[in-house]
Amino acid sequence: MERPTENRRIILGIDPGTNRMGYGILSVTGNRLQVVTLGDIDLHAIRDPYRKLRYIFDRVGMLVDEYRPGEVALESPFFGENVQSMLKLGRAQGVAMAAALSRDVAVFEYAPRRIKQSITGRGGAAKEQVAALLKSMLGIDYNPRRLDATDGLAVAVCHYFVSSSPFGESHGLPVKKSRPKGITWERFLKENPDREVKTK
Amino acid sequence: MERPTENRRIILGIDPGTNRMGYGILSVTGNRLQVVTLGDIDLHAIRDPYRKLRYIFDRVGMLVDEYRPGEVALESPFFGENVQSMLKLGRAQGVAMAAALSRDVAVFEYAPRRIKQSITGRGGAAKEQVAALLKSMLGIDYNPRRLDATDGLAVAVCHYFVSSSPFGESHGLPVKKSRPKGITWERFLKENPDREVKTK
Repeated sequence: MERPTENRRIILGIDPGTNRMGYGILSVTGNRLQVVTLGDIDLHAIRDPYRKLRYIFDRVGMLVDEYRPGEVALESPFFGENVQSMLKLGRAQGVAMAAALSRDVAVFEYAPRRIKQSITGRGGAAKEQVAALLKSMLGIDYNPRRLDATDGLAVAVCHYFVSSSPFGESHGLPVKKSRPKGITWERFLKENPDREVKTK
Repeated sequence: MERPTENRRIILGIDPGTNRMGYGILSVTGNRLQVVTLGDIDLHAIRDPYRKLRYIFDRVGMLVDEYRPGEVALESPFFGENVQSMLKLGRAQGVAMAAALSRDVAVFEYAPRRIKQSITGRGGAAKEQVAALLKSMLGIDYNPRRLDATDGLAVAVCHYFVSSSPFGESHGLPVKKSRPKGITWERFLKENPDREVKTK
């Protein structure tokens, strides 16, 4: 028996950077995924930091207005960055989020490893592997020099997988609250010594 | 001879925090300063980080729409924070900036020490000293338990001083580009060893 057709979901995925912001728009009908568009917002030429933030706000707003996504998923920054670049990334993320939130669109976030893992099965996968898998999964052509666009699409695909999984652990929650990844039996025992039954 | 009356400037000063956001609105006619209002946006009760960002965006937007400032000045974060709080602060700042920038209002930023110095003459002044000076300068009553509001007003006053000074060094520039503070002869020599003429 076929399940009834669900409503179409439109997901905007964004890989926010301070020099280039990749994005992908995914349409989901039932369990059929289709790429609506993907691209990147080039910020290199904008020197003034406030002009840059304004531009991000406007462009993300235009994407939301044009494609009317119901959900916006962003890649969260890697915490290895220093405080100064973290502040810059935070601002860029903040204005992109504001563009979505001010239009009543829900915002979600995923750590880089989580995104790679949901698509390739490996958190440490290379950008190229993620792109190649997206290509075969969604039939998109990708330009190896424009991997930011594919990264944006990857966030949208990750959000689809996570939010439609029966565990749905990251749905609407900040990444830090999501289920710990890559937990091993050794680590589990180390962290929960009382759970190990000693057989002597 | 009296100088002709200049146009009235309205400056919104913001001290952005992730739990409380202080603000003050300053009206400047010629060289006469008047406090239009001051207050704070309490964010403690909002747990969800995206709801919080949305709330900041909406509230700052409402202040801009109601008081129509031509300039918004923000206090920049202290870089001693860790990367995680820096990201949070960056986002909060980003959405506040987006609310102003999306309404075509210019944004300026000042480091905490710069603000204290412009008002008290000392970068290391206590919050209470800043508040007391603002009180005597502007005739405001302040509540010592609500110093965030006074902090917001302090940013507006700092922006007025800096932007109307003949040196106007921070006007429209990010804080980092402003003139280095507290450079000493010893440090200058250490950083520029070739500039020292050795007399043997």
